[in-house]
Amino acid sequence: MYLEKINSPSDVKKLSIEQLKVLAEEMRAALIQKLSVHGGHCGPNLGMVEATIALHYVFDSPKDKIVFDVSHQSYCHKMLTGRKDAFLYSEHYDDVTGYSCPEESEHDFFTVGHTSTSLSLACGLAKARDLKGGKENIIAVIGDGSLSGGEALEGLDFAGEMTTNFIAVINDNDMSIAENHGGMYKNLRLLRDTDGKAECNLFKAMGLDYVFVKDGNDIEALIKAFEQVKDSAAPVAVHIVTEKGKGLSFAEKNKEKWHWAAPFDPETGEPKYPWGGEDYSSVTADYLLKKMKADKKVCAITSATPTVFGFTSDKRAEAGAQFIDVGIAEEHAVAMASGMAKGGAKPFYGVYSTFLQRTYDQLSQDLCINSNPAVISVFAASVYGMTDVTHLGIYDIPMLSNIPNMVYIAPTTKEEYLAVLDWAMEQTEHPVAIRIPGGEMVSDGKTVTKDFGILNKYEMTRSGSKVAVIALGTFYDMGVKAAELIEKNTGVKPTIINPYYITGIDAEMLESLKNEHDVVITLEDGILDGGFGEKIARFYGGTKVKTLNFGLKKEFLDRYDPSAVLRENHLTPEQITEDVCKVILNTV
Amino acid sequence: MYLEKINSPSDVKKLSIEQLKVLAEEMRAALIQKLSVHGGHCGPNLGMVEATIALHYVFDSPKDKIVFDVSHQSYCHKMLTGRKDAFLYSEHYDDVTGYSCPEESEHDFFTVGHTSTSLSLACGLAKARDLKGGKENIIAVIGDGSLSGGEALEGLDFAGEMTTNFIAVINDNDMSIAENHGGMYKNLRLLRDTDGKAECNLFKAMGLDYVFVKDGNDIEALIKAFEQVKDSAAPVAVHIVTEKGKGLSFAEKNKEKWHWAAPFDPETGEPKYPWGGEDYSSVTADYLLKKMKADKKVCAITSATPTVFGFTSDKRAEAGAQFIDVGIAEEHAVAMASGMAKGGAKPFYGVYSTFLQRTYDQLSQDLCINSNPAVISVFAASVYGMTDVTHLGIYDIPMLSNIPNMVYIAPTTKEEYLAVLDWAMEQTEHPVAIRIPGGEMVSDGKTVTKDFGILNKYEMTRSGSKVAVIALGTFYDMGVKAAELIEKNTGVKPTIINPYYITGIDAEMLESLKNEHDVVITLEDGILDGGFGEKIARFYGGTKVKTLNFGLKKEFLDRYDPSAVLRENHLTPEQITEDVCKVILNTV
Repeated sequence: MYLEKINSPSDVKKLSIEQLKVLAEEMRAALIQKLSVHGGHCGPNLGMVEATIALHYVFDSPKDKIVFDVSHQSYCHKMLTGRKDAFLYSEHYDDVTGYSCPEESEHDFFTVGHTSTSLSLACGLAKARDLKGGKENIIAVIGDGSLSGGEALEGLDFAGEMTTNFIAVINDNDMSIAENHGGMYKNLRLLRDTDGKAECNLFKAMGLDYVFVKDGNDIEALIKAFEQVKDSAAPVAVHIVTEKGKGLSFAEKNKEKWHWAAPFDPETGEPKYPWGGEDYSSVTADYLLKKMKADKKVCAITSATPTVFGFTSDKRAEAGAQFIDVGIAEEHAVAMASGMAKGGAKPFYGVYSTFLQRTYDQLSQDLCINSNPAVISVFAASVYGMTDVTHLGIYDIPMLSNIPNMVYIAPTTKEEYLAVLDWAMEQTEHPVAIRIPGGEMVSDGKTVTKDFGILNKYEMTRSGSKVAVIALGTFYDMGVKAAELIEKNTGVKPTIINPYYITGIDAEMLESLKNEHDVVITLEDGILDGGFGEKIARFYGGTKVKTLNFGLKKEFLDRYDPSAVLRENHLTPEQITEDVCKVILNTV
Repeated sequence: MYLEKINSPSDVKKLSIEQLKVLAEEMRAALIQKLSVHGGHCGPNLGMVEATIALHYVFDSPKDKIVFDVSHQSYCHKMLTGRKDAFLYSEHYDDVTGYSCPEESEHDFFTVGHTSTSLSLACGLAKARDLKGGKENIIAVIGDGSLSGGEALEGLDFAGEMTTNFIAVINDNDMSIAENHGGMYKNLRLLRDTDGKAECNLFKAMGLDYVFVKDGNDIEALIKAFEQVKDSAAPVAVHIVTEKGKGLSFAEKNKEKWHWAAPFDPETGEPKYPWGGEDYSSVTADYLLKKMKADKKVCAITSATPTVFGFTSDKRAEAGAQFIDVGIAEEHAVAMASGMAKGGAKPFYGVYSTFLQRTYDQLSQDLCINSNPAVISVFAASVYGMTDVTHLGIYDIPMLSNIPNMVYIAPTTKEEYLAVLDWAMEQTEHPVAIRIPGGEMVSDGKTVTKDFGILNKYEMTRSGSKVAVIALGTFYDMGVKAAELIEKNTGVKPTIINPYYITGIDAEMLESLKNEHDVVITLEDGILDGGFGEKIARFYGGTKVKTLNFGLKKEFLDRYDPSAVLRENHLTPEQITEDVCKVILNTV
């Protein structure tokens, strides 16, 4: 096996073309084996086997620097740069992250996981090289799906004005996570159909030279193209056409489903741990589809991740023109939603917390200054969300809740979520964001009659004394459990409050708590800095009421165990009780 | 005079071509007169006189909807849609804002002021129309400079896939605020040079149809082009070539200087209130130019606003390759800066607070997760900054300071600023942002020896008791004055602290304050929600120490008087003293 002997790119360079082809098959087999056991990004990596080999055959990493966009397609790069064991031996599977990682290897330059960043980051490496008088090649590898992101287009435009070496490898598999959306994809198709010869050419229009590789899974053709552009003194786009999921029949057939996959049976493609239950995604899709049928003005928007809120391809077809995938373009999604709301439609945008941060200015400027009634559901906004450092969902409260006019609400159950959604979609005064609770969906069957149009009105779910527990969203149940434990341990029966509103305080209720309460504690499923609890601490700052804020420390976590993180942050009912008791002893 | 009789677009439609030409001259004269007295955006409006007339001649606003990008070129639109008095009579000059404004007129659809948003907002209006079954024209008007922004390119790409009416008017005056930067501008030049006939065409590559107007200041040619695309059933770009600043000789000659101008003598072009003094902009440019000469790795970056930090065209020439204007592309600027820092260069990015919010994700993902040592100076981050609702600088503390790994520092004087800058540019561990103080620059000549590498170490500038005043950045002087007044009124001599660090607390110092202090107050020049003071309130929440946070309410202000806003927020030394005394009386 050649792969076992590859310890660095120099070992790749020693092989003949025929041997490289065998290496490619070995890599593909290793990928499929690991992915079937471990899960991960299937389609992107299976398509990039040959191109990664060719890159390392032609260029001299790490002197020449390769920057992978999103870097979910960097598994093959890891295999060829000293990290093959993490793909060959199951006991080493977790030695590497799923993205590029400078701590792992000198061949990786950035920790990234969001799309559309490679061109700009690589431009930075190129500019640093030029200032220092270096001569190395700088290569950005970016998929066609990522190209629609504003940051990528800004980077492409900037690169097109450079007058030194810069190589953009455009990995065109004619797919984003789902199908591509955007006018530029007509041009990519034209280029594919004309073997790159069409005069109208997005890359040339952006100022870059252009090379086309018809079969981006043909090692020889790739090597030839890369050798042609190596050491070029002008920016050049190398447009390679690859097959997403190549070599895994299910992944070739259903490219969307196999973009990322949980562990599966490599023979049948069936998931090892099937999931068919109801969750906030399916609940959202079902709600919206029903609403769409009753009202032609209702429209759901995704930025290239439709299944985040349950819109699998069959449901997209059912929704028709009432479902819009803007491609990877979060900024456009929010600004367009604002425009749609202004125009009298009822737009809904479903998005992961981590990707919502790609559109802060549009939230503030295009949406909130204009107070247009668009609705945003924020998914995976929780310590129980994605755990890669690049995909965390614990920062959206400070980001979103401090923008004026935004109404950010945290329901705690399925019933509350649907009630908030129902109100939000029909009201016409506020931009509304809804923070989907993390962890398993709680459904208690209760009817929710609250009028969410009376902003910032908290709900006291149990009246007590001495201690009040204000427990937001996901952590409401933890607040209830802590209150029970406090009562058990001290005899003090705490008041419990479901605040719902992240973006404002219920001054009247907080004021009234002063009479019978010495300590107010807050719980929130996100970092404390800039968050919800600090607003309560500020409110009571000049009074005798003491406050304790429970939430997460401001830090970048990576591939963490949520239970461990909660313990470290004193976020168990026992720890909360202990901390509260300390304060009570000094107070009561 | 025709202009006096224009009360709505229907009055424009009644005029003959010759009369429209006279109207254009009247409008230009009114613009120049008002601008010379009032100041405002000269270049953009003078160039758009004819195109605006033609738009209103051909289309039926407000049924047909025109969305202006940035909307700093919407003065002529305002003149023709019932707001002429604000341009004809000095007593009405302030009846209108400098941007489009739905509260003013049904012909304005969005309050905007940031670039690159028009295409996405207009796409939203178009999608709402389609859902509702409408047939009106949707027109976005965008300058060539704004096109390089990611949001605009995302919008263009999305528009290119539409199959219904959408008209993008590309106002190409071959300028951004300064000269354009980016590869796409080579394509725009090619299109101008070939009368729009070149096959390689950015707009076609993005999927739109294309119409070229060689002289975008020729009313007849414009009317013909707009009539051609009116009611078109497919997205189309109308590329019009205009002259920025047309009709004002100084503005035609020096387009950058006359993009925006303060009141001037219409005969000579000389500013009425000349400013030649030192400020944070000139100090920054002088510092960087000196540093660049000593170190080739130092590089300053702007996103199309080079004079924000003093880089007028002569200074840009002096800096050569060590000055990079990325065009309007804030996302690219930050990601590239991260890449440059990773590559061993020393990047500095100077930017307005309000525009920094266009790049939140790049700050978090591309820069802070990677802890690359790029330096950002944040200008106009103050209640004393720009006062238009779209350009406020009072939100950057919650936005920026809650991102892990970011070191955000608020100096209070010129000397402190330069000391922070000096440290930031040479350290290699942290992304550092510096919050330039607002208001007039304070220079006290003091030597600053503080080691800023010891993060989150506050400085106690006066030791006292009972009350501690933690006064951040701009408001340090106000804190000192309040402390003096508290001492005068109560005999209590407050401790005064310059915290410097916005992104972290000095737990040791805060802990030590507990011994001798009952009340800790904080002052910050920004909104309180998610800000600096709340972190102090959280710290002391469970203790006997009372806290009072002084800062601004979370709201969108518009064209405000800073003194009035400060008073409304209890931000005068007298009000602070009064509030503190109330708490002392309940405490001491």
